[in-house]
Amino acid sequence: MKSSLVSSKNLIRLQSAISRSFLQHSSKPISQTPFFIPIIPTNTINLYNQRYQNLQFQIRSNSTSIMSSSAFKPEQARLPPALPLSSPPLTKFKIGICQLAVTPDKERNIQHAREAIEEAAQKGAHLVVLPEIWNSPYSNDGFPVYAEDIDAGHDASPSTAMLSEVSSRLKITVVGGSIPERCGDKLYNTCCVFGTDGKLKAKHRKIHLFDIDIPGKITFMESKTLTAGETPTIVDTDVGRIGVGICYDIRFQELAMIYASRGAHLLCYPGAFNMTTGPLHWELLQRARAVDNQLYVATCSPARDTGAGYVAWGHSTLVGPTNTYLNFCM
Amino acid sequence: MKSSLVSSKNLIRLQSAISRSFLQHSSKPISQTPFFIPIIPTNTINLYNQRYQNLQFQIRSNSTSIMSSSAFKPEQARLPPALPLSSPPLTKFKIGICQLAVTPDKERNIQHAREAIEEAAQKGAHLVVLPEIWNSPYSNDGFPVYAEDIDAGHDASPSTAMLSEVSSRLKITVVGGSIPERCGDKLYNTCCVFGTDGKLKAKHRKIHLFDIDIPGKITFMESKTLTAGETPTIVDTDVGRIGVGICYDIRFQELAMIYASRGAHLLCYPGAFNMTTGPLHWELLQRARAVDNQLYVATCSPARDTGAGYVAWGHSTLVGPTNTYLNFCM
Repeated sequence: MKSSLVSSKNLIRLQSAISRSFLQHSSKPISQTPFFIPIIPTNTINLYNQRYQNLQFQIRSNSTSIMSSSAFKPEQARLPPALPLSSPPLTKFKIGICQLAVTPDKERNIQHAREAIEEAAQKGAHLVVLPEIWNSPYSNDGFPVYAEDIDAGHDASPSTAMLSEVSSRLKITVVGGSIPERCGDKLYNTCCVFGTDGKLKAKHRKIHLFDIDIPGKITFMESKTLTAGETPTIVDTDVGRIGVGICYDIRFQELAMIYASRGAHLLCYPGAFNMTTGPLHWELLQRARAVDNQLYVATCSPARDTGAGYVAWGHSTLVGPTNTYLNFCM
Repeated sequence: MKSSLVSSKNLIRLQSAISRSFLQHSSKPISQTPFFIPIIPTNTINLYNQRYQNLQFQIRSNSTSIMSSSAFKPEQARLPPALPLSSPPLTKFKIGICQLAVTPDKERNIQHAREAIEEAAQKGAHLVVLPEIWNSPYSNDGFPVYAEDIDAGHDASPSTAMLSEVSSRLKITVVGGSIPERCGDKLYNTCCVFGTDGKLKAKHRKIHLFDIDIPGKITFMESKTLTAGETPTIVDTDVGRIGVGICYDIRFQELAMIYASRGAHLLCYPGAFNMTTGPLHWELLQRARAVDNQLYVATCSPARDTGAGYVAWGHSTLVGPTNTYLNFCM
């Protein structure tokens, strides 16, 4: 009488993957579990109802997994044994999440971002995360105007040139939020990751374009101007293995699972949720990704600007694998 | 410089599956989207700090998906076209979630469950969900004593015999929580689903046994006495296609994804989270499963009994795909 549409063989594979993750987490000594001390740099531009707090938090993750590895016996799933995940190069470090206010003045945005990154580094951040579309207003009219040729670099991409310069000078890793990228006749919503040597380590193009139409609430069609990226992006940095997604990418659990299966220690999602989807899903999705995949999740939103055409939700957040989380201001 | 460890081919498959889900949801007329009116029957046993509310809720799901199907263009993922999911046989019905108090008196537990189901049916419930381990105290000492031979049925399983009788008499579908099941020399934590004809439609054995050891907080090792189930369980009922998990099964996103990919309209998780894991994860996990997989999730816990050896968290819940949820009392 049992209705079982999935073979036990498939399930055992599934369980094996799960137990690998749990065993790994439970078998680590406490000192090997990374945790992060987020910093939000003081904002120096007080436009647009932007609100910052000059706070310093510390998340102390309970690194003792709920599961006792020796007792977790999902029967047939115990063989083959769990594969060890890599230990992060740093087990404790500060992360600066820069919830930047964005203006129509690109030079000012770049200067502001530079100062925020410098402030975070001064406070000891080894990793800095910027928001989605931080050099341009978030609009289909703006994207083509503010877009940069990242591959050409230098003068063709002053935003990423700045990120490269500061990451090298300050010896920090930068997950550079996202900017509109021009590549041939296409535009992408693109996140660049720079290493402590200032070199571009990875470039993530937003995979899941955000086309929303809730009459009377919010309408936005990224696909009017942007092209979707095609690949997940996971990168080894000096602070650990980072999986990158942009905003609506976080809605798709499969992407986070791919990153977890590849050994990510941290997922970074620059994201500009809005006043409709923000209260609905922003917090839930990142907490779910962290707990379901037993890793850290950092999100970085632009500061809320109620005068903008697209009003970002704000509330940049850092979540740990045990559902400990810090939810920042608007 | 891009670090891309997953091929775009795989990603496109992933996106295709996702877009299928979203397109399906957005293309459904409102009347085809099921929603549920949960009922908690009045409790007639007021032992053990049990608290009930005689409430009647109605969740009105916003069935207009956030995604506009015509505008959602994840590039290469548009072909092949989305497969239609099956429409549920009922698009609107009441669900009774019976947060039963459990006593050491098995006959009393069975009688109490019968009365709760009858009350729910009288209030119009088409589907009734019971808690995890409702006929027995939740303890390794209790499981072997209270276990029943479900396959033998009749006198060998008075708990499921009662479920069969009431579901047939009241013409309702019953997701019968779980009871300890004896099969040969093994014990399982087993959920039985009965159709409106009183026949056993599915039997789910808890896949992920709950072995927890947090010193000073909670220690419980189901694997001391129980054997893990090996297969997911998804079943077509008169109210729709239901995926079944028990308690800790909800922690594993893969199981819910399997059910969603098989067209489940609703996931039911009888579950007895505790005073440690309850506040940490109970609400988060069910909201995540509902939103990530765009379906309904119903959970049913035993009533909280602070005098028991294992104190259940309570807070039985119903969540909709847009993150609308009702969180019940302890």
